[in-house]
Amino acid sequence: MAQLSRKIINDPVYGFITLDHPVLLNIAAHPYYQRLRRINQMAFAHLVYPGAVHTRLHHSLGAYHLMGSAVSELQRKGFPISEEEALGVKIAILLHDIGHGPFSHALENVLIRGVHHEALSLLIMKVLNEELDGQLEMAINIFTGVYPKRFLHQLVSGQLDMDRMDYLTRDSFFTGVSEGVIGYDRILKMLTVHGGELMVEEKAIYSIEKFLVARRLMYWQVYLHKTVVSAEKMLVRILERARQLVEQGFAVPASSPVLDFFLQEKEPDVVGNLDKFCLLDDYDVMGAIKRWMSHSDVVLSLLSRSLIDRRLLKVRFQATPVDENYVRGERKKLAGQLGISEEEARYFVFTGEAVNTTYNSKDEKINILFRDGSVKDISEVDNALIQHTLASTVKKFYICHLNIDI
Amino acid sequence: MAQLSRKIINDPVYGFITLDHPVLLNIAAHPYYQRLRRINQMAFAHLVYPGAVHTRLHHSLGAYHLMGSAVSELQRKGFPISEEEALGVKIAILLHDIGHGPFSHALENVLIRGVHHEALSLLIMKVLNEELDGQLEMAINIFTGVYPKRFLHQLVSGQLDMDRMDYLTRDSFFTGVSEGVIGYDRILKMLTVHGGELMVEEKAIYSIEKFLVARRLMYWQVYLHKTVVSAEKMLVRILERARQLVEQGFAVPASSPVLDFFLQEKEPDVVGNLDKFCLLDDYDVMGAIKRWMSHSDVVLSLLSRSLIDRRLLKVRFQATPVDENYVRGERKKLAGQLGISEEEARYFVFTGEAVNTTYNSKDEKINILFRDGSVKDISEVDNALIQHTLASTVKKFYICHLNIDI
Amino acid sequence: MAQLSRKIINDPVYGFITLDHPVLLNIAAHPYYQRLRRINQMAFAHLVYPGAVHTRLHHSLGAYHLMGSAVSELQRKGFPISEEEALGVKIAILLHDIGHGPFSHALENVLIRGVHHEALSLLIMKVLNEELDGQLEMAINIFTGVYPKRFLHQLVSGQLDMDRMDYLTRDSFFTGVSEGVIGYDRILKMLTVHGGELMVEEKAIYSIEKFLVARRLMYWQVYLHKTVVSAEKMLVRILERARQLVEQGFAVPASSPVLDFFLQEKEPDVVGNLDKFCLLDDYDVMGAIKRWMSHSDVVLSLLSRSLIDRRLLKVRFQATPVDENYVRGERKKLAGQLGISEEEARYFVFTGEAVNTTYNSKDEKINILFRDGSVKDISEVDNALIQHTLASTVKKFYICHLNIDI
Amino acid sequence: MAQLSRKIINDPVYGFITLDHPVLLNIAAHPYYQRLRRINQMAFAHLVYPGAVHTRLHHSLGAYHLMGSAVSELQRKGFPISEEEALGVKIAILLHDIGHGPFSHALENVLIRGVHHEALSLLIMKVLNEELDGQLEMAINIFTGVYPKRFLHQLVSGQLDMDRMDYLTRDSFFTGVSEGVIGYDRILKMLTVHGGELMVEEKAIYSIEKFLVARRLMYWQVYLHKTVVSAEKMLVRILERARQLVEQGFAVPASSPVLDFFLQEKEPDVVGNLDKFCLLDDYDVMGAIKRWMSHSDVVLSLLSRSLIDRRLLKVRFQATPVDENYVRGERKKLAGQLGISEEEARYFVFTGEAVNTTYNSKDEKINILFRDGSVKDISEVDNALIQHTLASTVKKFYICHLNIDI
Repeated sequence: MAQLSRKIINDPVYGFITLDHPVLLNIAAHPYYQRLRRINQMAFAHLVYPGAVHTRLHHSLGAYHLMGSAVSELQRKGFPISEEEALGVKIAILLHDIGHGPFSHALENVLIRGVHHEALSLLIMKVLNEELDGQLEMAINIFTGVYPKRFLHQLVSGQLDMDRMDYLTRDSFFTGVSEGVIGYDRILKMLTVHGGELMVEEKAIYSIEKFLVARRLMYWQVYLHKTVVSAEKMLVRILERARQLVEQGFAVPASSPVLDFFLQEKEPDVVGNLDKFCLLDDYDVMGAIKRWMSHSDVVLSLLSRSLIDRRLLKVRFQATPVDENYVRGERKKLAGQLGISEEEARYFVFTGEAVNTTYNSKDEKINILFRDGSVKDISEVDNALIQHTLASTVKKFYICHLNIDI
Repeated sequence: MAQLSRKIINDPVYGFITLDHPVLLNIAAHPYYQRLRRINQMAFAHLVYPGAVHTRLHHSLGAYHLMGSAVSELQRKGFPISEEEALGVKIAILLHDIGHGPFSHALENVLIRGVHHEALSLLIMKVLNEELDGQLEMAINIFTGVYPKRFLHQLVSGQLDMDRMDYLTRDSFFTGVSEGVIGYDRILKMLTVHGGELMVEEKAIYSIEKFLVARRLMYWQVYLHKTVVSAEKMLVRILERARQLVEQGFAVPASSPVLDFFLQEKEPDVVGNLDKFCLLDDYDVMGAIKRWMSHSDVVLSLLSRSLIDRRLLKVRFQATPVDENYVRGERKKLAGQLGISEEEARYFVFTGEAVNTTYNSKDEKINILFRDGSVKDISEVDNALIQHTLASTVKKFYICHLNIDI
Repeated sequence: MAQLSRKIINDPVYGFITLDHPVLLNIAAHPYYQRLRRINQMAFAHLVYPGAVHTRLHHSLGAYHLMGSAVSELQRKGFPISEEEALGVKIAILLHDIGHGPFSHALENVLIRGVHHEALSLLIMKVLNEELDGQLEMAINIFTGVYPKRFLHQLVSGQLDMDRMDYLTRDSFFTGVSEGVIGYDRILKMLTVHGGELMVEEKAIYSIEKFLVARRLMYWQVYLHKTVVSAEKMLVRILERARQLVEQGFAVPASSPVLDFFLQEKEPDVVGNLDKFCLLDDYDVMGAIKRWMSHSDVVLSLLSRSLIDRRLLKVRFQATPVDENYVRGERKKLAGQLGISEEEARYFVFTGEAVNTTYNSKDEKINILFRDGSVKDISEVDNALIQHTLASTVKKFYICHLNIDI
Repeated sequence: MAQLSRKIINDPVYGFITLDHPVLLNIAAHPYYQRLRRINQMAFAHLVYPGAVHTRLHHSLGAYHLMGSAVSELQRKGFPISEEEALGVKIAILLHDIGHGPFSHALENVLIRGVHHEALSLLIMKVLNEELDGQLEMAINIFTGVYPKRFLHQLVSGQLDMDRMDYLTRDSFFTGVSEGVIGYDRILKMLTVHGGELMVEEKAIYSIEKFLVARRLMYWQVYLHKTVVSAEKMLVRILERARQLVEQGFAVPASSPVLDFFLQEKEPDVVGNLDKFCLLDDYDVMGAIKRWMSHSDVVLSLLSRSLIDRRLLKVRFQATPVDENYVRGERKKLAGQLGISEEEARYFVFTGEAVNTTYNSKDEKINILFRDGSVKDISEVDNALIQHTLASTVKKFYICHLNIDI
């Protein structure tokens, strides 16, 4: 009984994940996909939640697993999904994050400017498609949304996509923040299609509310946790300083040729250097930062040492913008203490905004299909928990600054 | 190394529960407490969620376990709780449900009229206190709220009491409704006392929101699930019919002398017959219903057979009251079909209301203690999820009626 | 999108269980099947493990769920199983325990003598088959082992059947004895068929060892836990005494007519009274025992009161048979204390054996299929953990006796 | 209510871990301890089990948490453990792995020769002890075994130490190999002390058996999984080749100055360069390997590329040693294919042994304390599962070789 094209992977979250088609195995074995092993899903959240060291590879395998369940469920309900479409939508989700650079969102637009990670994902899919003799055609059409069955695209990217289902589930699992648990299995059972659009059945209302509240909680408690924000902003600052030094003509050798390349260029041509991009990962960045701990530039070395040793900038969140005079005063003080310019003190004293919207009924639409055939947005059902007031974006303002006594 | 006064109990929810004081062991071994083994925590919810067969004994052990954690946590934070108080509050929670009759809430005010289960709990505590030489004095003072440290009473009965923490956790565990999970452990870590009142620290805001949303979900998805409502209303109807027949002079032998006693009396004197009450449990009621499956009264026997065989009345929920004319019409039709009076048809066709409030900031107060020492109700914090609109009670109207084709 | 013949049931163990065929729904809704709700899977184990109150209905739904996974897995591996066979084997496992009487194994051969529960299961299946127009034909053939594809029968009843997989998993879950966990999902993935027989692939060796060790642990720690043994033996004693009194002409009214019937008859004709049997459950027995708490016979009432109040007989396990003189002495002493005959004292002082075999390579055969096509019993593989020495039956001897101070 | 010296850390395995003493907080915040964040607990096991990316920091926090439970448990049983001892044994376990180098066991004796990681742990503890004004004195005495209460040392390092309890629990959790689960909580409850030695109570026998079987399973299924072995041997080969090239005078720049240092020296003086060692982590090694992917030496670059891209050497396990002639033949063939010497082909074709002992009653002693005061080794109790036959070491022989078609 040959099972040549089948691979079963243990997953603490779902038990087992099965790859059961040659093209899936080829993709998973490809160096471009393997690179995702070296990119942390949650960047520096592990500095607060030590379990949160899972990788983008693990997340995309998980999202792929959920896609398999979602597709089977919809098929069982009588919505026609061909084998080709099923494979396509699974490939699309397996590769949806292939374009992520080091430290995922934390470094977006810092290392690689002007190209969004989804554009890179598409680019890499196309390369793989060529290598694999066009077997990714359907996946690409679904991913880009040109394929007529819109609900397939929505399973990959939409309010109820498998990406979110997995990352909320997985991040809550690995951080140990059990309150972030969503009832992904129940939501999957309640998926339906109406007018070509993905939606959920009426009885899923409370599960969807729960899902949105869990997401809200994960944002404020984990993704935007002040210590996490501090570490990730330091990471950004370090790379900005390195690039600035490069621009000023100083030698700032990173740990790897590919990182050197991306640091040297002001707006690096990723498209023309996709092979280099596909070698870039967290190890290059961490290696560089470790190296810069002893760089002669005091700004670069102090930031690097502080991040590596987890001596993070202090962060304070508040409801209103931080007073600019106060910030300037702090910078001045610090500049004196460290013997740097006030301009350089900006690397240690800076402000920002943490932003999250619990549910935006304009951009997002989670539609409920009622038994009588009517459709309502989740924020419009009777006695809705998720109301218009939650639709507005919540902004919290913060200031990061170096602790004077270090 | 003698460990005479220590008993460790396996619990699938928390791992292990430890009883570690002679008086706790005495209480747990008492027949009055053992009776709670024979009272289902969730009445007939198991007809929908087959795992929900856990008992009141299990729940009260669980609440006791959480109380131990809460007390340790508060002590660790520097709030003085003496050993005597600690033991008292643990006894109080261990016994908080001792006054529950068969099928818990489902039969409240049906079998035992005019006495609330909390009053019975207190009564039984007093009996035990006498048997145990006054060792329950402190527990009784805490339970009744006369003890000066109000937060101790609030741990037993209040918005954040250990009763709720356990029943939501346990019910969600045994039903398998994972979305009902609350982060009880995190909430416990965030408990604090301010001005003598129990509250939570600022950083617990999202956990409390999550807790209220999980409770809301459990109510609508589990406790007020239409099939559960149907079964529990049938149970009530059966006992009402039995009592009516008794009043009319018919013989309606139950399965046990104690149930016979409580059925015979119109307003049974529970206080004067506490020993009888303390023998009454689900087995008496189920035994009676099984017996009544073949009773000569068609109303009683049909209801009994239907409940035992899980051929439940159909239920329809709607947002507005059910039209009275429609109800009358249905009763008339059924009366004809079954050869019973229209009055008797009321046992098979009736309406009711399912009511739940997500958060009532008037009755309930979940206070948040901010770092600056200020206190706010959870519904008044910035960007609150739990808002005034959620404070109003949600009513759903339902009609139960026998399926004509049976 | 009609889903008329589909029902999804929440299960804390596996998440969701789906019944997806009209005949499955018909069976599940049948009063004979619903009766399993009223039979505790683990009899009195809940006196030690309070969570262990799950029912035979829940277990058989769970075993049915695993069967679905096993069948899909084998089909995916290329072993032909037709839709009819798949449905048949699922029905067979759903109904494999339908013939269990009250308190499952604890009362076997006490209430119903001379008929094994599997024979009763078959009998009831045949009745249902008639009611359901022959739709259970295949299931019956698989259940009885006459169907040619032997591995289908082995999935229902054999060393690696879904019954065991579920009961070990479920019992360990509800007791909270996490060490009893078996890797059922991994074992299912490793199932294979060779020469028409069910076996496992080579890489399952350690999982199978783990499975046998977990079972061994569950036996000694849970099923044969001394307090559980005590309670279950008391149950047996109570019914034996009741029957003895009946035989002697005393009135021993139970709580229900059906239990009265089975107590009155020496060797009740179950086959001729299947309808009565199908009404019998734990509630009848518990109701009777509660009633007998105040029976005039001191033996019956004392045993009944002790069991209900959880004042259990003391048990001592030992490696050698209990000395007969000692036992006689104890009986004599007790007879004096209680004012009963020495013969009657046997109800309170008695001995027995608890027996378990970790792995019996004669009766049982767990075969491993090696990559080279060879087949070996699990006890014969290299460096086997499960060896011949474990094949012999372990006997522990015990004595139960009433504590003198009661 | 100041809680200055308390830090609560979320852990998906145990819920919450609390550091509650200033010295614990100081240690945890120290750069030497933070380095453990950058050392993977299971080296390359994540190539097979993608969840297994947890760190040594997380493991040592977990072991610390269990130590707290073990100490409380023993205190509750009446064994005197002073506050100073309790803190000491907790510090000792928190730091027990502080001396681990990159990739933990996988690189032991490759990068750092001649010094065992436990010796390094001790060395670092002494440095920390000086920095923290002697507060680690007791911890060091317990760690080195000179402290008179032997059982304290055994809790840190022994058959039932908290190191094992945590790594088996944690590794099984993060790999998703649920069969590896041990009942750590139950074992902790059963710990006892007799004659100054740590042992377990009689009723823990089955739990201990389960523990040993789970460990056996984890070894063969995870730690010695053939793909894991292959990856880890490649890692070793890469570093051996790098060092060989250095010795031959070639330039082999690593990614970091500290790794350069340790590669340049034949027998690097770790003790004299402890500060350098305390900067060394997985990132240095992975950075170097990524860099070496394009090194001019074909052996180094091919091995490096293969490991990074997860194109691993094929491994075959067998019961007998691999035939030397066959190995030589393979090397010759490969040398021809790659244009390298036969000596260099050794880097791609080599043999080894995987060794594990389920229970060695000579070296290890897990003692059971019986109720009658007698003590027996777990392998000597009645009907022991863990027998002498399991005491002998099981050796499996393997060959790794490059797949010719790459």
